[in-house]
Amino acid sequence: MENLNKYVEHTLLKQDASEKDLLKLFEEAKEHKFLGVCVNPCYVKLAKENLKGSDVKIVTVIGFPLGANTTDVKVFETKKAIEDGADEIDMVINVTKLKDDDKDFIVNEIRSIKQACGVHNLKVIIETDLLTKEEIVRACKYSIEGGADLVKTSTGFVKGGVGAKAEDVKLMYQTVKDAGLQVKASGGIRDKEAAIAMIEAGAVRLGTSSGIKIVS
Amino acid sequence: MENLNKYVEHTLLKQDASEKDLLKLFEEAKEHKFLGVCVNPCYVKLAKENLKGSDVKIVTVIGFPLGANTTDVKVFETKKAIEDGADEIDMVINVTKLKDDDKDFIVNEIRSIKQACGVHNLKVIIETDLLTKEEIVRACKYSIEGGADLVKTSTGFVKGGVGAKAEDVKLMYQTVKDAGLQVKASGGIRDKEAAIAMIEAGAVRLGTSSGIKIVS
Repeated sequence: MENLNKYVEHTLLKQDASEKDLLKLFEEAKEHKFLGVCVNPCYVKLAKENLKGSDVKIVTVIGFPLGANTTDVKVFETKKAIEDGADEIDMVINVTKLKDDDKDFIVNEIRSIKQACGVHNLKVIIETDLLTKEEIVRACKYSIEGGADLVKTSTGFVKGGVGAKAEDVKLMYQTVKDAGLQVKASGGIRDKEAAIAMIEAGAVRLGTSSGIKIVS
Repeated sequence: MENLNKYVEHTLLKQDASEKDLLKLFEEAKEHKFLGVCVNPCYVKLAKENLKGSDVKIVTVIGFPLGANTTDVKVFETKKAIEDGADEIDMVINVTKLKDDDKDFIVNEIRSIKQACGVHNLKVIIETDLLTKEEIVRACKYSIEGGADLVKTSTGFVKGGVGAKAEDVKLMYQTVKDAGLQVKASGGIRDKEAAIAMIEAGAVRLGTSSGIKIVS
């Protein structure tokens, strides 16, 4: 498979990453012409400074990784991230409300964040590790209704979680494709084989810290 | 040791807890006269409704659990949480900035959040699992300088982390006591023996989901 680099969002979300680690991430993303970098909100400005003049997109995460902030806070964080230079927004769904099937809450939250995103892509992280197949489908349907642009499998922060699974990516893809949404696979994608499995299952984006290994 | 219940902040921060689980938490907190409950921000309002007329304090978490949000967002989240009914605020320090020893950033962030707290207690979660002894001391000193009321060991969300250790609690206590701050131990406190060890090391608060077991 060619152009694997154009699937990769080169990701560093570790709580104790140093600024040096982040600067390295930005340089690597430029060198390998990755589609984007994915960093925590406090580093969006730093990404903007260091990726100036490149095509590398700046992706950041909202309500990450628990998704248990209020909608107001998620919306505010989204606005600030875009002001700071974020090109794309990956929000975490409220898993409790999803499991309790509070449709109004979930759809309203996604819609409010999408409004704050404007033209910028909004991805909804549904956290597949914690969901049944039925809940995965539900999360995708609510993401469609809320106006999201992509659905994304995982934060990568669930204890004992495995992250993206090809069967989940396939289910998500089947659920959202007719509505024009796309799928980002993330969490546990550590080599080229796993990357290709995700793409074959329907993913157009790969959130991974193993991007260099994947394209080498 | 008597009145162990008055040390306990009965805690439920799981991403996939159901509303039913939260309602149960509130009832248990009233029944056992725990000092407080600790819940995610999206549940502060629900806590307020369900703890009306009781002495149980409502504690919530800010920038949780990575601490990698911008200061603006943490301040906004704090204000909203207090509007929603939070009595105390447990914020996560920016671990990257702490490790890179960006003192101005850390002290300014704590001070800004404390301003938003007003009379409400501010605890700074320093995430001991990720820190050296020197960094623990540094985090405590910056918390003093920023005007925090307590320092707290752990989020409980570090992969492979152990949470509160008596030796860390002791070091934190020694560092902050003369400045009048107190210590909250949290993460991995699962029985009475562990609880007492933390109190003997200097903790006045225990963040735990095993409160009932501890007081029984």
